[in-house]
Amino acid sequence: MQKIGFRLQLKMATLDEYVARHSSVWPEMLEALSATGWTNYSLFLDRTDGTLFGYVETSSLQAAKEGMSRLEINTRWQAEMSHYFESLEGRNPDEGFTELEQVFFLA
Amino acid sequence: MQKIGFRLQLKMATLDEYVARHSSVWPEMLEALSATGWTNYSLFLDRTDGTLFGYVETSSLQAAKEGMSRLEINTRWQAEMSHYFESLEGRNPDEGFTELEQVFFLA
Repeated sequence: MQKIGFRLQLKMATLDEYVARHSSVWPEMLEALSATGWTNYSLFLDRTDGTLFGYVETSSLQAAKEGMSRLEINTRWQAEMSHYFESLEGRNPDEGFTELEQVFFLA
Repeated sequence: MQKIGFRLQLKMATLDEYVARHSSVWPEMLEALSATGWTNYSLFLDRTDGTLFGYVETSSLQAAKEGMSRLEINTRWQAEMSHYFESLEGRNPDEGFTELEQVFFLA
């Protein structure tokens, strides 16, 4: 199982709205994530500067991303989410995140 | 089990040294972390700006931190690590980290 850390930059003006949306993610979106191998998935926010950190466990990040990219529910969700992020350069949040380097692990 | 995300700022000049130290953490330090309840613990680095993102699972972060704070091995390890971090304001890295807000979770 891969342990993945990633990072995104939220717009400060809409932090509260982003958080509210994530307290009620569409059930079909949650089912799609589970079905494509996204497990033990957390998003963490630093409200001081809008940094968003993601942590997810999956057997293959590439397969998990490709699995979601083929689903219409994800296309709709990411289109709505893209308004909350800075500098995605035209990509959706789930394609434009910065994957981080795992430098330590203790089971 | 709590899912904890936290953040620290590394000095850019010594990133490689910090990473090298974490490929060979003292065995006694690893044992101490396990004994005080630090599990599934990852550190992730963003080399573009030295942001360090920590993820750990524990039944109580307060108990896990207090458990380590009482151990001499931790005092020695944190004293060596403190040189690699920015703006800890005199605190050790494991006391000075910024805990992040978990805004989403999917098991």
